[in-house]
Amino acid sequence: MKFRRSERLVDMTHYLLDHPFQLVPLTFFAERYGSAKSSISEDLTIIKETFEHRGIGRLVTVPGAAGGVKYIVSSSESETRQFITEMCELVANPERLLPGGYLFMTDILGDPQVLKKVGKTIASAYAHKSIDIVMTVATKGIPIAYAAASYLNVPVVIVRSDSKVTEGSTVSINYVSGSSKRIQTMGLSKRSLAQGSNVLIVDDFMKAGGTINGMISLLDEFNASVAGISVLVESEYAEDRLVNDYLSLIKLTDVDTKARKINVKPGNYFERFEQGGNLYENSSHK
Amino acid sequence: MKFRRSERLVDMTHYLLDHPFQLVPLTFFAERYGSAKSSISEDLTIIKETFEHRGIGRLVTVPGAAGGVKYIVSSSESETRQFITEMCELVANPERLLPGGYLFMTDILGDPQVLKKVGKTIASAYAHKSIDIVMTVATKGIPIAYAAASYLNVPVVIVRSDSKVTEGSTVSINYVSGSSKRIQTMGLSKRSLAQGSNVLIVDDFMKAGGTINGMISLLDEFNASVAGISVLVESEYAEDRLVNDYLSLIKLTDVDTKARKINVKPGNYFERFEQGGNLYENSSHK
Repeated sequence: MKFRRSERLVDMTHYLLDHPFQLVPLTFFAERYGSAKSSISEDLTIIKETFEHRGIGRLVTVPGAAGGVKYIVSSSESETRQFITEMCELVANPERLLPGGYLFMTDILGDPQVLKKVGKTIASAYAHKSIDIVMTVATKGIPIAYAAASYLNVPVVIVRSDSKVTEGSTVSINYVSGSSKRIQTMGLSKRSLAQGSNVLIVDDFMKAGGTINGMISLLDEFNASVAGISVLVESEYAEDRLVNDYLSLIKLTDVDTKARKINVKPGNYFERFEQGGNLYENSSHK
Repeated sequence: MKFRRSERLVDMTHYLLDHPFQLVPLTFFAERYGSAKSSISEDLTIIKETFEHRGIGRLVTVPGAAGGVKYIVSSSESETRQFITEMCELVANPERLLPGGYLFMTDILGDPQVLKKVGKTIASAYAHKSIDIVMTVATKGIPIAYAAASYLNVPVVIVRSDSKVTEGSTVSINYVSGSSKRIQTMGLSKRSLAQGSNVLIVDDFMKAGGTINGMISLLDEFNASVAGISVLVESEYAEDRLVNDYLSLIKLTDVDTKARKINVKPGNYFERFEQGGNLYENSSHK
């Protein structure tokens, strides 16, 4: 059975979006549709142009016998700026204020459309790096980690403060929570992270950076390396932060519980654009 | 600027996949591409046929002024059978055996490609129901809940055994864990679930059903109703189960720690197909 171009375009678009960062040989599509490779190449040119024009992402073509095409997520600067501005307004809503100056964020972290955009924004910033796995700590970081991992097409590992029998042997460390200076424990299932992995650390919130610093120490135990650190919200912190090289989408500058005012501004994500660097230039990500 | 059909097809496919269960007016696409509504209708016919032929899902057209088109996820019987068979093999691997007869499932629950399929399978079964929100309990149910919610395009709420300051006021209940008969507590942030919601309960594992029964009791406190219950793995349980009407993808019939053998078979998901009922017939889901 032969397929018309229009049908191929619809199915290929779905297939590529469903398999980000996966190198798909042209022969795979040629066989799937009973079409010549030259027709598939023409289809891919149309998809590539539309993806770029619409900010859906990039299609990278790898030439040669072992070559093929892969879809790489990329969020344009204008799309990112618009999304982060909207997020700032959402977070600054005074109804989020909880006793103690905490912010209610559960609704934001439960919304699949917001999470998709958070995941796309984070994944876009690391698309040029080689990421093997995304790591987070239970509980609130989990949806963000999965959202980013789904665009990077890599697994997620979850660090826990309590160890469960269903995790098997775990490696645990003690760490000092940055702001409260309390000693806490976190652990990771031994089987869930391969030695030497390149790990993207993701969390919902960072103040002093104690939790993230704990995750970095934990990675040492697995001889794994930090490929990047990204948080949804960073909070202003007067003292020395324990973590330096990170990416934040939103920055909480001040919470005034008396005046019921939350001051929020974009995080350091934008600085990457301002440095003029093209985040997406060299994708070595497998 | 006018767009050619081929470009429209690529962009519309992406847009529809990215906004499941959302009614998109034809005028939205007509304006987006500067095209006549008749051309958009023809495009949608091509997309609809390809989606159905390739098992991507269905496109439902709602006629009239307030009408439009929406993408509804649907997993075909053959696709579902193949996926569940693969999952059974994956789970039956004796290397998963942990002390006490527990199974290591962390790798499965961390794999975004597996989770996508789990989410699609669960969402397909409830596509005809009106679901407002997906509920699960921390921690292992979380990725499954988000995977299903992303296909249903509804939010997720997470029930916790510990209450956190960042959740605001919570409603807590005591429940009896089915197999260990211990009294435990679970709570849900008051703000995170609207009164009267139709809730799909999702979890990774069910034995006696105590945890899921707890979630049902919690829903009573919110005057919310159970629209469905779905678990990835159900375990054989000799006594009366606390929950009856549920959908399981996999059934763990026996774990023999001495012989290192895990017996797994498909869950009751297939029975729905065998009853001859078309799960996807009447989609009243908004």
